[in-house]
Amino acid sequence: MSRTWEEKSGGITAPRGFLAAGVAAGIKYKGKRDVALIFSEVPARAAGVFTTNRVKGAPVIVTMERVARGYARAVVVNSGNANTCNGEQGIRDARAMAQEAARVLNIPEEDVLVASTGVIGQPMPMDRVLPGIAAAARELSPGGGAAAAEAIMTTDTEPKEAALSLTLGGHTVTIGGMAKGSGMIHPRMATMLCFISTDAAVSPSCLQEMLRYAVDRSFNMISVDGDTSTNDMVLVLANGLAGNPEIAAENEDYYLFRDALTEVCSRLARAVARDGEGATKLLEVKVINAASEKDARLAARAVVASNLVKTAVYGRDANWGRVICAVGYSGAQFDPARVDIYLGDVMVARDGMALPFDEEAASAALAGREVRVLVDLKSGECEATAWGCDLTGEYVNINASYRT
Amino acid sequence: MSRTWEEKSGGITAPRGFLAAGVAAGIKYKGKRDVALIFSEVPARAAGVFTTNRVKGAPVIVTMERVARGYARAVVVNSGNANTCNGEQGIRDARAMAQEAARVLNIPEEDVLVASTGVIGQPMPMDRVLPGIAAAARELSPGGGAAAAEAIMTTDTEPKEAALSLTLGGHTVTIGGMAKGSGMIHPRMATMLCFISTDAAVSPSCLQEMLRYAVDRSFNMISVDGDTSTNDMVLVLANGLAGNPEIAAENEDYYLFRDALTEVCSRLARAVARDGEGATKLLEVKVINAASEKDARLAARAVVASNLVKTAVYGRDANWGRVICAVGYSGAQFDPARVDIYLGDVMVARDGMALPFDEEAASAALAGREVRVLVDLKSGECEATAWGCDLTGEYVNINASYRT
Repeated sequence: MSRTWEEKSGGITAPRGFLAAGVAAGIKYKGKRDVALIFSEVPARAAGVFTTNRVKGAPVIVTMERVARGYARAVVVNSGNANTCNGEQGIRDARAMAQEAARVLNIPEEDVLVASTGVIGQPMPMDRVLPGIAAAARELSPGGGAAAAEAIMTTDTEPKEAALSLTLGGHTVTIGGMAKGSGMIHPRMATMLCFISTDAAVSPSCLQEMLRYAVDRSFNMISVDGDTSTNDMVLVLANGLAGNPEIAAENEDYYLFRDALTEVCSRLARAVARDGEGATKLLEVKVINAASEKDARLAARAVVASNLVKTAVYGRDANWGRVICAVGYSGAQFDPARVDIYLGDVMVARDGMALPFDEEAASAALAGREVRVLVDLKSGECEATAWGCDLTGEYVNINASYRT
Repeated sequence: MSRTWEEKSGGITAPRGFLAAGVAAGIKYKGKRDVALIFSEVPARAAGVFTTNRVKGAPVIVTMERVARGYARAVVVNSGNANTCNGEQGIRDARAMAQEAARVLNIPEEDVLVASTGVIGQPMPMDRVLPGIAAAARELSPGGGAAAAEAIMTTDTEPKEAALSLTLGGHTVTIGGMAKGSGMIHPRMATMLCFISTDAAVSPSCLQEMLRYAVDRSFNMISVDGDTSTNDMVLVLANGLAGNPEIAAENEDYYLFRDALTEVCSRLARAVARDGEGATKLLEVKVINAASEKDARLAARAVVASNLVKTAVYGRDANWGRVICAVGYSGAQFDPARVDIYLGDVMVARDGMALPFDEEAASAALAGREVRVLVDLKSGECEATAWGCDLTGEYVNINASYRT
């Protein structure tokens, strides 16, 4: 199998047959885009992964039901209001959003998925949302990916898009995606909002399996603040316009496509981690030679989520004791007396004990915009990587006054 | 059963027959007390609860072994160095501390327990620690509790002591205690260092049972930053000098004493939470009417540990959506459509939905030095309380430069 990917621009609209738009409907701040619409020119297979929070936003409840059918054609999204903790009215509002999108797109209502992100527990301003959906439908275009990516942002400082193409059975298949997320981000089965489009032909069950695989290795490996949101979802629509033989079993194409899908998800997940609220650095933690993949993932996620590691990274303090402490409480099985730790390329601990190391070199390894921590458990052959960011005073400033 | 407690001063030296001292040995900063010694004039029963972190400090390993015997007479503690990740040399150093204490106190080495707190992964400066132990032994006194409480501090801004007495079978029994802890604090079976003394006569197995009960309702219900330390321990010594009939079964005295022990632990736990690194407020989260005590505790701990709740409390932002979100991912079983939430006395959500509430009153409820959040799950009869603190820019400042 050759894993050759070609970079593409266009994000969610990079694959054939996908149109998108993002408009300002007045839900967020005046003039900011806050309603996005994604539309496939032909019916598409759909799959989704959703928050495990027991409190689920109304759009999550509605979309979970619909995506279970395995088919969808459009996604309508708003930012500025999560439509969560709004009771029965919230469910009615989420359905009304889908209804309005179906009406203006002239497709069946059950083919429309819906997502919301923003503040919890405030009624949806439907008088602004509904006209926004109609306006977005009028602006749908094959170049609309960037506007849509902007319209789903909340505290994000930049839009997050990715797209690449690969060849399957002689056909060029493209995968595009966009994501939002900056706070309330913690790995627990799907995190934040992410929408993926592809022109590949894939059966609904394979699509769901591959999405779960990709999300476990991407969005479930990032943390900004340890809080698992009520509205997280990752959706994928596959419209088959690439003309490849449908992927309906675990053949070579299945693995080629799954790897590419995982790559798109990983790029978007890294972008979310890098844009963590108040963050100045992307933190990448790789755990190698673990006894099992589960151990590697537990350990990597604990380190990346530790407030103490995050503040040390912010302060460029080579405090590796906080790294081994987090591995220790992660739940991973390992022998503390075998652990090696590297900050960037500088080995700072061997066999669970301090090494004399060059403080300046170690501090330099923490100084860049991307900080790498490597933990070698020396107890097996499995590995995992997790992404997060530093914890800064700016995170506190942002969240001490988000709602008001 | 009458639960009448009398307040006492003196902390760890409040009960009969306990001496303590705290001296400056030069491990921390020049002139700061950093070695503490606790000594019972007669042999005492002992019990302990320890960190569940897989990486354990050398003193934890040594003390766990010794306390399993059920007897001890002295505790030697240093701050400024955790003696963790120091390999075999760390174990030798922890034993050498106990040996030196045994020598100067003229008691068997196995009767000495040892604890350390401070930075991880740096060799113990035994040339300063050992003379410090000898100096502490010379200063032992029945009024030494305060000096000892000061000597175990790290980033704490104030010493933490508590003591009270109760009557058991006509005898006045006193329980005293001291604790340290400000960062790397998260509920996972015993958190930080805490030492309790009592002149009650209690069998070792009852003492262990009661300590576990008390710790589960106190130290295991606090969180400062979600990081479970490598060196946590809570120890209790009971020397029997009160002359009460030995508590050796679950009789009336057992419950009276257990409640008092839980009260002492709770006061010290609250003091640790209030003194969380950078904190300006104590946060108390009470969950009522849960289906089980486990659900109540999961929910209370998740809210108190949420970075987003903590920053909202700091910013006096009545953002109850973050509270219900944390309850949602806590793992507790409940019906989101039945949850009521109060900030102080202001009801802000009913049946999982927003209520129109007086923003000024709600913000005022978050303005004091103590903030109370009440979550009514309306699905049973169990309750639990957890304690934490707000998350501030000062937490980041402290931890961006702790080691260097």
